[in-house]
Amino acid sequence: MSASSRHGGADSFRLYVRVYYEDTDAGGVVYYANYLKYLERARTEWLRRAGFEQRDLVGQLNLLFTVRSVVVDYRAPARLDDRLEVEAQILRIGRASIEFAQAVRRDGVELCSARVRVASIDAETFRPRALPAELRQCLERSP
Amino acid sequence: MSASSRHGGADSFRLYVRVYYEDTDAGGVVYYANYLKYLERARTEWLRRAGFEQRDLVGQLNLLFTVRSVVVDYRAPARLDDRLEVEAQILRIGRASIEFAQAVRRDGVELCSARVRVASIDAETFRPRALPAELRQCLERSP
Amino acid sequence: MSASSRHGGADSFRLYVRVYYEDTDAGGVVYYANYLKYLERARTEWLRRAGFEQRDLVGQLNLLFTVRSVVVDYRAPARLDDRLEVEAQILRIGRASIEFAQAVRRDGVELCSARVRVASIDAETFRPRALPAELRQCLERSP
Amino acid sequence: MSASSRHGGADSFRLYVRVYYEDTDAGGVVYYANYLKYLERARTEWLRRAGFEQRDLVGQLNLLFTVRSVVVDYRAPARLDDRLEVEAQILRIGRASIEFAQAVRRDGVELCSARVRVASIDAETFRPRALPAELRQCLERSP
Repeated sequence: MSASSRHGGADSFRLYVRVYYEDTDAGGVVYYANYLKYLERARTEWLRRAGFEQRDLVGQLNLLFTVRSVVVDYRAPARLDDRLEVEAQILRIGRASIEFAQAVRRDGVELCSARVRVASIDAETFRPRALPAELRQCLERSP
Repeated sequence: MSASSRHGGADSFRLYVRVYYEDTDAGGVVYYANYLKYLERARTEWLRRAGFEQRDLVGQLNLLFTVRSVVVDYRAPARLDDRLEVEAQILRIGRASIEFAQAVRRDGVELCSARVRVASIDAETFRPRALPAELRQCLERSP
Repeated sequence: MSASSRHGGADSFRLYVRVYYEDTDAGGVVYYANYLKYLERARTEWLRRAGFEQRDLVGQLNLLFTVRSVVVDYRAPARLDDRLEVEAQILRIGRASIEFAQAVRRDGVELCSARVRVASIDAETFRPRALPAELRQCLERSP
Repeated sequence: MSASSRHGGADSFRLYVRVYYEDTDAGGVVYYANYLKYLERARTEWLRRAGFEQRDLVGQLNLLFTVRSVVVDYRAPARLDDRLEVEAQILRIGRASIEFAQAVRRDGVELCSARVRVASIDAETFRPRALPAELRQCLERSP
């Protein structure tokens, strides 16, 4: 279901997802908001692969990840039954944020590319919280 | 956006919703799971009309509503841009549960009918909790 | 990602899905409508395993599957990061319909069970269409 | 449900939406992808207000709108039961595209802002199609 690999000279993580009816709209293609679900699944699986489950980050560290900004370019539509490759690559790790470059491809053709900035916040106060050292170390080595 | 009324000899609540691309699928019609969203919006607005916001029920009473069962019959499809009437009618109020008869109509034609059983539970333990007396009284008078 | 097996003395198909943020709601659990997405993914993968893609059924045979009715019992909540087993089992094959018994489990515990009746219709007229002989034969041998 | 108005010296359209359980996630706030649904509802209602239904654009003109790019900044979370104002304002009308500035506010506080570029395409070939003259005129006068 997933694979990490060197790609284009940089570390990246890839998840494969299938397009179901739930993802499509009356235009016959994947609904534009639903690509953001695919992108998040890849970030989540990449984090899980690094040994971190978001449930535990909340439960044990009271830490939540929240998306601060997204930039998405839609180039070509994905369709029902397509098998898509969703890539996540770290661009930059800040004190309390991570910036990802992401892409969705079908048979090597890029359908959509994205930049996503995720912030690490306190699950109660919603204020910025520095990334835990252990997580930061994993990220810098990862995926 | 909503109206309560006597309908077919019984009290009922009606909400009007519009079908957007987000609701449809590649078959060109509303995706079957999304009717459950419409049904819940009507139950929520009916509760709000009765003076109760779910946010307050959780925040003040630690009370959560959870769906125990649904039975849905899909008769005819709804399509993009349709304006739908979503009805909610109380069938039975139990100690810690409410049973609704619901329907989705377009121009008076029933597209979908449902029975939904909702339980009142503790937001921490997820165990059944009796409906608060004040809410029960409102429901028995309502909508 | 999927496995077919004899289970409880009957043929069944199982798909494994992961719970992401997109599936959950502010109650901290999987939103009730989203189980219907899981159920459909399992039916779709079971069909794909039998050699049929819905895209081809529409494109080549002008055949669409549409859900006629669902009965769902929710027993216990699924949560973020859960890995769920989604089962699909054929109860009955009619001339132009299929009835499924389905369940969602976590570590062998049933969280939700369902009966789903799916009709085979013409993609243009939306009128019932007999299941193609080839598909029927596969189903009778399946999962 | 909607209102058009002069706002900040420029023409804009505003739609009011309510946050339901379907929109939230286990973090207790609106899921980041779901803001894109709100944004599209506002663009759709603004188009409807101008006299155009997307269903008719497809059915009569074989014209489809597709999102080419989105830039979204998330500033503060929306929560269950919030009533949100969703604004759509035209930045630029091209030959076969429209660029929108959009925002989501609660009680006048901006929770999220966005730029969305929508292209006008042929519903069959998915190739760019000039905006119909009638629609263009409405847009230039609008909202």
